[in-house]
Amino acid sequence: MGLFTKDIKTLDDLFIHQLQDIFYAEKQLVKALPKMADKATAPQLKQGFLDHLKETENHVTRLEQVFKMHGAEIKAVDCPAIDGIIKEANETAGEVADKAVLDAALINAAQAAEHYEITRYGSLIAWAKQLGRNDCATVLQQTLAEERAADQKLTSLAESKINARAAS
Amino acid sequence: MGLFTKDIKTLDDLFIHQLQDIFYAEKQLVKALPKMADKATAPQLKQGFLDHLKETENHVTRLEQVFKMHGAEIKAVDCPAIDGIIKEANETAGEVADKAVLDAALINAAQAAEHYEITRYGSLIAWAKQLGRNDCATVLQQTLAEERAADQKLTSLAESKINARAAS
Repeated sequence: MGLFTKDIKTLDDLFIHQLQDIFYAEKQLVKALPKMADKATAPQLKQGFLDHLKETENHVTRLEQVFKMHGAEIKAVDCPAIDGIIKEANETAGEVADKAVLDAALINAAQAAEHYEITRYGSLIAWAKQLGRNDCATVLQQTLAEERAADQKLTSLAESKINARAAS
Repeated sequence: MGLFTKDIKTLDDLFIHQLQDIFYAEKQLVKALPKMADKATAPQLKQGFLDHLKETENHVTRLEQVFKMHGAEIKAVDCPAIDGIIKEANETAGEVADKAVLDAALINAAQAAEHYEITRYGSLIAWAKQLGRNDCATVLQQTLAEERAADQKLTSLAESKINARAAS
Protein backbone atom coordinates (compact mmCIF):
# COMPACT_ATOMS: atom_id res chain seq x y z
CA MET A 1 0.00 0.00 0.00
CA GLY A 2 1.29 3.48 -0.79
CA LEU A 3 1.48 6.37 1.59
CA PHE A 4 -1.75 8.34 1.96
CA THR A 5 -3.35 6.56 -0.97
CA LYS A 6 -6.41 5.59 1.12
CA ASP A 7 -5.98 1.96 0.13
CA ILE A 8 -7.46 0.65 3.41
CA LYS A 9 -11.22 0.59 2.83
CA THR A 10 -12.32 -2.33 5.03
CA LEU A 11 -11.34 -4.12 8.25
CA ASP A 12 -10.06 -6.91 6.01
CA ASP A 13 -7.70 -4.42 4.31
CA LEU A 14 -6.53 -3.22 7.75
CA PHE A 15 -5.97 -6.83 8.87
CA ILE A 16 -3.81 -7.55 5.80
CA HIS A 17 -1.92 -4.25 6.21
CA GLN A 18 -1.07 -5.12 9.82
CA LEU A 19 -0.05 -8.65 8.82
CA GLN A 20 2.41 -7.04 6.39
CA ASP A 21 3.60 -4.67 9.14
CA ILE A 22 4.28 -7.39 11.72
CA PHE A 23 5.82 -9.60 9.00
CA TYR A 24 8.40 -6.84 8.42
CA ALA A 25 8.88 -6.45 12.19
CA GLU A 26 9.49 -10.17 12.77
CA LYS A 27 12.02 -10.26 9.92
CA GLN A 28 13.87 -7.25 11.38
CA LEU A 29 13.98 -9.04 14.75
CA VAL A 30 15.48 -12.15 13.10
CA LYS A 31 18.36 -9.84 12.10
CA ALA A 32 18.55 -8.00 15.45
CA LEU A 33 18.44 -10.92 17.92
CA PRO A 34 21.84 -12.50 17.01
CA LYS A 35 23.45 -9.05 17.53
CA MET A 36 21.76 -8.75 20.94
CA ALA A 37 22.99 -12.26 21.85
CA ASP A 38 26.53 -11.20 20.86
CA LYS A 39 26.35 -8.12 23.11
CA ALA A 40 24.88 -9.96 26.13
CA THR A 41 27.31 -11.06 28.85
CA ALA A 42 25.16 -13.19 31.21
CA PRO A 43 25.02 -16.72 29.70
CA GLN A 44 21.29 -17.10 30.49
CA LEU A 45 20.50 -13.85 28.65
CA LYS A 46 22.66 -14.78 25.66
CA GLN A 47 20.90 -18.17 25.47
CA GLY A 48 17.50 -16.51 25.96
CA PHE A 49 18.07 -14.31 22.89
CA LEU A 50 19.21 -17.32 20.81
CA ASP A 51 16.17 -19.36 21.92
CA HIS A 52 13.86 -16.47 21.03
CA LEU A 53 15.59 -16.16 17.64
CA LYS A 54 14.41 -19.70 16.82
CA GLU A 55 10.88 -18.82 17.94
CA THR A 56 10.98 -15.60 15.89
CA GLU A 57 11.99 -17.53 12.75
CA ASN A 58 8.95 -19.71 13.40
CA HIS A 59 6.76 -16.60 13.78
CA VAL A 60 7.81 -15.53 10.27
CA THR A 61 6.78 -18.98 8.95
CA ARG A 62 3.44 -18.78 10.80
CA LEU A 63 2.73 -15.37 9.26
CA GLU A 64 3.44 -16.80 5.78
CA GLN A 65 0.92 -19.52 6.67
CA VAL A 66 -1.71 -16.92 7.69
CA PHE A 67 -1.17 -14.92 4.46
CA LYS A 68 -1.80 -18.14 2.50
CA MET A 69 -4.83 -19.18 4.61
CA HIS A 70 -6.35 -15.75 4.02
CA GLY A 71 -5.54 -15.74 0.29
CA ALA A 72 -3.32 -12.66 0.62
CA GLU A 73 0.03 -11.96 -1.00
CA ILE A 74 3.02 -12.68 1.27
CA LYS A 75 4.48 -9.20 1.57
CA ALA A 76 6.14 -6.89 4.10
CA VAL A 77 5.53 -3.15 4.48
CA ASP A 78 7.85 -0.78 6.31
CA CYS A 79 7.14 -0.63 10.03
CA PRO A 80 8.56 2.64 11.44
CA ALA A 81 7.64 1.51 14.97
CA ILE A 82 9.94 -1.53 15.05
CA ASP A 83 12.64 0.44 13.20
CA GLY A 84 12.42 3.08 15.97
CA ILE A 85 12.50 0.46 18.73
CA ILE A 86 15.60 -1.21 17.21
CA LYS A 87 17.29 2.18 16.57
CA GLU A 88 16.71 3.18 20.21
CA ALA A 89 18.04 -0.20 21.40
CA ASN A 90 21.25 0.29 19.40
CA GLU A 91 21.71 3.90 20.50
CA THR A 92 21.22 3.12 24.19
CA ALA A 93 23.44 0.01 24.02
CA GLY A 94 26.11 2.16 22.37
CA GLU A 95 26.11 4.52 25.34
CA VAL A 96 26.57 1.87 28.04
CA ALA A 97 30.13 1.45 29.32
CA ASP A 98 29.57 -1.38 31.84
CA LYS A 99 28.81 -4.97 30.77
CA ALA A 100 26.40 -5.75 33.63
CA VAL A 101 24.48 -2.49 33.00
CA LEU A 102 24.44 -3.33 29.27
CA ASP A 103 22.65 -6.61 30.07
CA ALA A 104 19.93 -4.64 31.91
CA ALA A 105 19.66 -2.24 28.93
CA LEU A 106 19.42 -5.16 26.47
CA ILE A 107 16.53 -6.70 28.43
CA ASN A 108 14.77 -3.34 28.45
CA ALA A 109 15.25 -3.05 24.67
CA ALA A 110 14.04 -6.60 23.99
CA GLN A 111 10.95 -6.05 26.13
CA ALA A 112 9.99 -2.98 24.08
CA ALA A 113 10.04 -5.20 20.97
CA GLU A 114 8.06 -7.95 22.76
CA HIS A 115 5.40 -5.49 23.89
CA TYR A 116 5.10 -4.06 20.39
CA GLU A 117 4.47 -7.55 19.08
CA ILE A 118 2.06 -8.41 21.92
CA THR A 119 -0.15 -5.43 21.11
CA ARG A 120 -0.04 -6.03 17.34
CA TYR A 121 -0.86 -9.76 17.63
CA GLY A 122 -3.64 -8.87 20.10
CA SER A 123 -5.31 -6.61 17.50
CA LEU A 124 -4.72 -9.08 14.66
CA ILE A 125 -6.39 -11.89 16.64
CA ALA A 126 -9.40 -9.71 17.54
CA TRP A 127 -9.76 -8.61 13.89
CA ALA A 128 -9.38 -12.19 12.57
CA LYS A 129 -12.21 -13.34 14.86
CA GLN A 130 -14.36 -10.36 13.80
CA LEU A 131 -13.75 -11.32 10.17
CA GLY A 132 -14.80 -14.92 10.86
CA ARG A 133 -11.23 -16.19 10.45
CA ASN A 134 -10.90 -18.22 13.63
CA ASP A 135 -8.41 -20.44 11.76
CA CYS A 136 -6.05 -17.46 11.32
CA ALA A 137 -6.71 -16.34 14.92
CA THR A 138 -5.66 -19.77 16.23
CA VAL A 139 -2.30 -19.62 14.41
CA LEU A 140 -1.65 -16.03 15.55
CA GLN A 141 -2.59 -16.99 19.12
CA GLN A 142 0.30 -19.48 19.24
CA THR A 143 2.75 -16.68 18.46
CA LEU A 144 1.14 -14.30 20.95
CA ALA A 145 1.53 -16.93 23.71
CA GLU A 146 5.24 -17.27 22.86
CA GLU A 147 5.77 -13.48 22.86
CA ARG A 148 4.11 -13.21 26.28
CA ALA A 149 6.22 -16.08 27.63
CA ALA A 150 9.41 -14.49 26.24
CA ASP A 151 8.51 -11.17 27.90
CA GLN A 152 7.85 -12.88 31.24
CA LYS A 153 11.15 -14.79 31.04
CA LEU A 154 13.00 -11.49 30.51
CA THR A 155 11.23 -9.91 33.51
CA SER A 156 12.12 -12.91 35.71
CA LEU A 157 15.76 -12.87 34.59
CA ALA A 158 16.03 -9.10 35.18
CA GLU A 159 14.47 -9.23 38.63
CA SER A 160 16.22 -12.40 39.82
CA LYS A 161 19.72 -11.65 38.58
CA ILE A 162 20.54 -9.01 35.96
CA ASN A 163 19.33 -5.86 37.79
CA ALA A 164 21.14 -6.81 41.01
CA ARG A 165 24.38 -7.44 39.08
CA ALA A 166 23.96 -4.12 37.25
CA ALA A 167 23.56 -2.28 40.57
CA SER A 168 26.54 -3.90 42.30
CA MET B 1 23.74 12.06 26.88
CA GLY B 2 25.51 12.01 23.51
CA LEU B 3 25.40 9.21 21.01
CA PHE B 4 27.95 6.46 21.59
CA THR B 5 29.77 8.48 24.23
CA LYS B 6 29.53 5.65 26.78
CA ASP B 7 28.00 7.99 29.33
CA ILE B 8 25.96 5.23 31.01
CA LYS B 9 28.30 3.67 33.54
CA THR B 10 25.90 2.53 36.29
CA LEU B 11 22.32 1.31 36.71
CA ASP B 12 21.60 4.75 38.17
CA ASP B 13 22.78 6.36 34.89
CA LEU B 14 20.55 3.93 32.93
CA PHE B 15 17.59 4.77 35.20
CA ILE B 16 18.04 8.50 34.58
CA HIS B 17 18.53 7.97 30.83
CA GLN B 18 15.26 6.02 30.62
CA LEU B 19 13.45 8.66 32.71
CA GLN B 20 14.60 11.21 30.09
CA ASP B 21 13.44 8.88 27.30
CA ILE B 22 9.93 8.33 28.70
CA PHE B 23 9.71 12.05 29.58
CA TYR B 24 10.18 12.81 25.86
CA ALA B 25 7.67 10.07 24.94
CA GLU B 26 4.97 11.39 27.30
CA LYS B 27 5.43 14.92 25.95
CA GLN B 28 5.09 13.68 22.35
CA LEU B 29 1.87 11.88 23.35
CA VAL B 30 0.49 15.10 24.86
CA LYS B 31 0.84 16.52 21.32
CA ALA B 32 -0.46 13.40 19.52
CA LEU B 33 -3.58 12.60 21.59
CA PRO B 34 -5.66 15.70 20.63
CA LYS B 35 -4.99 14.88 16.95
CA MET B 36 -6.15 11.30 17.53
CA ALA B 37 -9.29 12.58 19.29
CA ASP B 38 -9.96 14.82 16.26
CA LYS B 39 -9.69 11.88 13.87
CA ALA B 40 -11.86 9.51 15.96
CA THR B 41 -15.52 9.17 14.99
CA ALA B 42 -17.05 7.05 17.79
CA PRO B 43 -17.89 9.45 20.66
CA GLN B 44 -16.62 7.00 23.32
CA LEU B 45 -13.26 6.73 21.54
CA LYS B 46 -12.96 10.49 21.08
CA GLN B 47 -13.71 10.99 24.81
CA GLY B 48 -11.32 8.16 25.73
CA PHE B 49 -8.45 9.94 23.95
CA LEU B 50 -9.31 13.26 25.66
CA ASP B 51 -9.50 11.56 29.09
CA HIS B 52 -6.14 9.90 28.49
CA LEU B 53 -4.68 13.26 27.41
CA LYS B 54 -5.42 14.60 30.92
CA GLU B 55 -3.79 11.52 32.47
CA THR B 56 -0.78 11.91 30.15
CA GLU B 57 -0.31 15.55 31.21
CA ASN B 58 -0.29 14.25 34.77
CA HIS B 59 2.32 11.60 33.83
CA VAL B 60 4.61 14.42 32.64
CA THR B 61 4.18 16.15 36.01
CA ARG B 62 4.87 12.90 37.89
CA LEU B 63 8.08 12.38 35.91
CA GLU B 64 9.22 15.92 36.83
CA GLN B 65 8.52 14.93 40.45
CA VAL B 66 10.66 11.76 40.12
CA PHE B 67 13.54 13.72 38.53
CA LYS B 68 13.44 16.08 41.53
CA MET B 69 13.13 13.28 44.12
CA HIS B 70 16.18 11.59 42.57
CA GLY B 71 18.17 14.84 42.35
CA ALA B 72 18.42 14.61 38.55
CA GLU B 73 18.06 17.37 35.98
CA ILE B 74 14.58 17.53 34.37
CA LYS B 75 15.48 16.76 30.78
CA ALA B 76 14.18 14.88 27.74
CA VAL B 77 16.27 12.83 25.30
CA ASP B 78 15.10 11.80 21.83
CA CYS B 79 13.14 8.56 21.87
CA PRO B 80 13.20 7.03 18.36
CA ALA B 81 10.79 4.29 19.52
CA ILE B 82 7.88 6.62 20.29
CA ASP B 83 8.70 8.72 17.20
CA GLY B 84 8.43 5.52 15.13
CA ILE B 85 5.17 4.48 16.80
CA ILE B 86 3.61 7.92 16.16
CA LYS B 87 4.95 8.02 12.58
CA GLU B 88 3.42 4.60 11.90
CA ALA B 89 0.11 5.69 13.45
CA ASN B 90 -0.04 8.74 11.17
CA GLU B 91 0.96 6.78 8.07
CA THR B 92 -1.61 4.03 8.66
CA ALA B 93 -4.36 6.53 9.57
CA GLY B 94 -3.55 8.41 6.35
CA GLU B 95 -4.22 5.28 4.32
CA VAL B 96 -7.66 4.49 5.79
CA ALA B 97 -10.62 5.60 3.66
CA ASP B 98 -13.48 4.47 5.96
CA LYS B 99 -14.30 6.22 9.25
CA ALA B 100 -15.30 3.07 11.17
CA VAL B 101 -12.11 1.28 10.02
CA LEU B 102 -10.11 4.37 10.99
CA ASP B 103 -11.43 4.06 14.57
CA ALA B 104 -10.13 0.47 14.69
CA ALA B 105 -6.76 1.66 13.32
CA LEU B 106 -6.58 4.49 15.88
CA ILE B 107 -7.15 2.06 18.75
CA ASN B 108 -4.42 -0.18 17.37
CA ALA B 109 -2.05 2.81 17.16
CA ALA B 110 -2.87 4.02 20.68
CA GLN B 111 -2.32 0.54 22.12
CA ALA B 112 1.18 0.41 20.59
CA ALA B 113 1.99 3.63 22.49
CA GLU B 114 0.41 2.26 25.70
CA HIS B 115 2.42 -0.96 25.49
CA TYR B 116 5.63 0.98 24.90
CA GLU B 117 4.94 2.94 28.06
CA ILE B 118 3.91 -0.17 30.04
CA THR B 119 7.23 -1.88 29.31
CA ARG B 120 9.31 1.26 30.02
CA TYR B 121 7.56 2.01 33.33
CA GLY B 122 7.93 -1.69 34.27
CA SER B 123 11.71 -1.47 33.86
CA LEU B 124 11.92 1.92 35.59
CA ILE B 125 10.02 0.60 38.63
CA ALA B 126 12.22 -2.51 38.87
CA TRP B 127 15.37 -0.38 38.60
CA ALA B 128 14.11 2.17 41.14
CA LYS B 129 13.53 -0.63 43.66
CA GLN B 130 16.96 -2.13 42.91
CA LEU B 131 18.50 1.32 43.54
CA GLY B 132 16.70 1.61 46.89
CA ARG B 133 14.35 4.31 45.54
CA ASN B 134 11.02 2.85 46.59
CA ASP B 135 9.71 6.43 46.79
CA CYS B 136 10.32 6.91 43.04
CA ALA B 137 8.93 3.42 42.32
CA THR B 138 5.67 4.30 44.11
CA VAL B 139 5.13 7.41 41.96
CA LEU B 140 5.97 5.54 38.74
CA GLN B 141 3.63 2.71 39.79
CA GLN B 142 0.66 5.12 39.74
CA THR B 143 1.36 5.96 36.11
CA LEU B 144 1.88 2.30 35.16
CA ALA B 145 -1.52 1.44 36.65
CA GLU B 146 -3.14 4.20 34.55
CA GLU B 147 -1.39 3.06 31.36
CA ARG B 148 -2.58 -0.51 31.93
CA ALA B 149 -6.14 0.67 32.61
CA ALA B 150 -6.09 2.83 29.45
CA ASP B 151 -4.91 -0.15 27.40
CA GLN B 152 -7.65 -2.38 28.83
CA LYS B 153 -10.31 0.26 28.14
CA LEU B 154 -9.18 0.41 24.50
CA THR B 155 -9.34 -3.40 24.20
CA SER B 156 -12.86 -3.44 25.69
CA LEU B 157 -14.05 -0.66 23.39
CA ALA B 158 -12.56 -2.38 20.32
CA GLU B 159 -14.03 -5.78 21.15
CA SER B 160 -17.45 -4.53 22.30
CA LYS B 161 -18.12 -2.00 19.56
CA ILE B 162 -15.43 -0.60 17.25
CA ASN B 163 -14.29 -3.81 15.50
CA ALA B 164 -17.87 -4.90 14.77
CA ARG B 165 -18.68 -1.46 13.31
CA ALA B 166 -15.48 -1.58 11.23
CA ALA B 167 -16.44 -4.99 9.81
CA SER B 168 -20.03 -4.06 8.95
